[in-house]
Amino acid sequence: MNLAEQMNRLARQAKAASRALAALPAADKNAVLLAMANALEAHKSRLMEANAKDLAAGQKSGLSSAMLDRLKLDEKRIAAMARGLREVAALPDPAGRVLAERQRPNGLLLRKIATPIGVIVIIFESRPNVSADAASLCFKAGNATILRGGKEALASNQIIVETMIAAAQQACPRFPEHAIQVVPTIDRDAIRELLALTQYVDLCIPRGGEGLIRAVTECSKVPVIKHYKGVCHVYVDESADFAMAEEIIVNAKVQRPGVCNAMETLLVDRALAPTFLPVIARRLADCQVELRVDEAARAQLPADYPKLKVATEADWYAEYLDLILAVRVVDGVGAAIEHINQYGSGHSEAIITQNQSRADQFLAEVDSATVYWNASTRFTDGGEFGMGAEIGISTDKIGARGPMGLEELTTYKWIGIGSGQIRK
Amino acid sequence: MNLAEQMNRLARQAKAASRALAALPAADKNAVLLAMANALEAHKSRLMEANAKDLAAGQKSGLSSAMLDRLKLDEKRIAAMARGLREVAALPDPAGRVLAERQRPNGLLLRKIATPIGVIVIIFESRPNVSADAASLCFKAGNATILRGGKEALASNQIIVETMIAAAQQACPRFPEHAIQVVPTIDRDAIRELLALTQYVDLCIPRGGEGLIRAVTECSKVPVIKHYKGVCHVYVDESADFAMAEEIIVNAKVQRPGVCNAMETLLVDRALAPTFLPVIARRLADCQVELRVDEAARAQLPADYPKLKVATEADWYAEYLDLILAVRVVDGVGAAIEHINQYGSGHSEAIITQNQSRADQFLAEVDSATVYWNASTRFTDGGEFGMGAEIGISTDKIGARGPMGLEELTTYKWIGIGSGQIRK
Repeated sequence: MNLAEQMNRLARQAKAASRALAALPAADKNAVLLAMANALEAHKSRLMEANAKDLAAGQKSGLSSAMLDRLKLDEKRIAAMARGLREVAALPDPAGRVLAERQRPNGLLLRKIATPIGVIVIIFESRPNVSADAASLCFKAGNATILRGGKEALASNQIIVETMIAAAQQACPRFPEHAIQVVPTIDRDAIRELLALTQYVDLCIPRGGEGLIRAVTECSKVPVIKHYKGVCHVYVDESADFAMAEEIIVNAKVQRPGVCNAMETLLVDRALAPTFLPVIARRLADCQVELRVDEAARAQLPADYPKLKVATEADWYAEYLDLILAVRVVDGVGAAIEHINQYGSGHSEAIITQNQSRADQFLAEVDSATVYWNASTRFTDGGEFGMGAEIGISTDKIGARGPMGLEELTTYKWIGIGSGQIRK
Repeated sequence: MNLAEQMNRLARQAKAASRALAALPAADKNAVLLAMANALEAHKSRLMEANAKDLAAGQKSGLSSAMLDRLKLDEKRIAAMARGLREVAALPDPAGRVLAERQRPNGLLLRKIATPIGVIVIIFESRPNVSADAASLCFKAGNATILRGGKEALASNQIIVETMIAAAQQACPRFPEHAIQVVPTIDRDAIRELLALTQYVDLCIPRGGEGLIRAVTECSKVPVIKHYKGVCHVYVDESADFAMAEEIIVNAKVQRPGVCNAMETLLVDRALAPTFLPVIARRLADCQVELRVDEAARAQLPADYPKLKVATEADWYAEYLDLILAVRVVDGVGAAIEHINQYGSGHSEAIITQNQSRADQFLAEVDSATVYWNASTRFTDGGEFGMGAEIGISTDKIGARGPMGLEELTTYKWIGIGSGQIRK
């Protein structure tokens, strides 16, 4: 069987499984998830053995220690996967929700019902725990999943999914064995083949660096929901509460700089720059934050600021994921909005102000998935949004935007209940 | 300026216009739509003059009379465009709706708000009235539109949009002139160039034949919402009310056979075939419907049925858009669902039955945009759904599914209103 045939079979099996999954009651799905969680814990030594092979091969091929760390499965990480599965089991079933209902003058009752999407391809990088996390969310929403992880984690991903499937089949005889599949080859062309199969695959969610996501988007014929990067902004307005602005800025930049909802650019209203910038600079210096600033900001900053560079155009587009912050002085809320819509990535932005009308303008005109007034950008997260768990954060506008939890892994259908209505 | 630069400018202008549109109040949008309607009527002779040039060129290049008829703008059609604009003005603004609201334990108030999508490219075939219809819906939802019609209708499309823009600017000084643009070239590569500009274009909606839609999907890097075809089914279950089934079948096949929600395949429960098929055959014969039947159906049909052929595998996939009907006998509701999910196009299907549990199974397991119980498939339509107007019917699952009205031309954003919340 060549690669195209292999991918065709994988996708066809997934589509057939998705039909069976759509008919599986919530109680069965939850029993399956709990059985999977128990099985991952019960078979942790088998998992770690397979993972050890991946690690040994990775070491041989010269993976960095950071990569090897991401690849590693230990007891703690296996327990975290199991806990994740149990949390998903406890969440409400997103399929079957009635999203709208109306009766037409002719008596036809129309209901808009949330339904599973069908077959979802998840493409991700080295962490094998994503296999369990992503597949459990897709499964709970009634979707079949095809997983394509990093090539260095293939054995780990396969053993995780095998373990989950075996447990699921024991817990629920109706569980379709192809509900969760791992692409069984490291051939790079597999992705292109798989994402051409529009008759079987309904959605692709790539998770990882910008390069991976661009490559997937370039080749995919099926819809893709993605986020390229999180170039998040905080704008401090003339009438901001200084103390509040300080706390939010430090939180948004420093609390966890390596994540997508961390702030990358600080915009400060010109009216405020002389008073506010020296204050915030002290806090940021204490936190070892390097600043990349425009001329107007530099003029207000202490000359002895420990790490200071002049910003270039590239800095306004940069996702540092590090203790580095771009700083720009802007002429009011309009200029802040313009900067964000031009340079931002449509992820998360915040305005700090006590002025309602400027806040309203910012919230309305900033074209991003999530826009905050007097709160940290770090809240853009499925858990913080009360979704329970997330499969990612979408900066797209079609399908889902912002944190994607279980509800965002469903589509809908219209049901029309009549008593013989015909069209006149 | 080469083609790539030209398309880049067009898309960049559209993106800028979309920012201004998103901030336009509903009252301004409605005033603009009414002014556009009046202007189309006031300038009908200018419209018909430009259209006459398209018609003359079309005649010269050998367009069929059907094509020429679709291309033609007369007083009646201009009045219909104006009426359409006034209807859209009367519909509620879909942007700004609060789709969900929740307060988190930390006091952060989260609101999910419907917002415009941004820039939408509409690709369509020869009817120039689509320019006004599609652009008015996109505009009302707050989106900028780029129109690419058939090459034979370029002059007509341009004069329609020029007339609308001039009226809009007079009615509302804040109206951005690039809110509606026509691709000013008939170069085929324009579509590929335009649909590569993911930084400016948010969505493409192709309307037309399967070939056009496949070509657009193949080349597009931006999300596409489409419907390839409507291979709609009616399944007559063992416990169907015969009289109701007859009326629905005749309506679904005959009332307007050339549209996408007309029935193309009739599935009949084997238990019912001997009694029901002869009855429905009389009605279909009266309506001059040609039948393409499987062996089991042929055995039950009168030997003298006027137009009868044996169905081939291709017939189960066929969208006839004509007085032709494929007929197949199936073993109950499970087999009907399987047939539909295998051969159907995911558009509209109906079950005729008095049995609730079989109806429930059909409604749940048929994977189509709209599924009816005891009603005609012909109801899949924005107007019939109470949406007021539609831009098309999506058989996709990501973004919108089924009839697409104004609400389906919006996306959403999350707004978080805090009082200094930071992430712990």
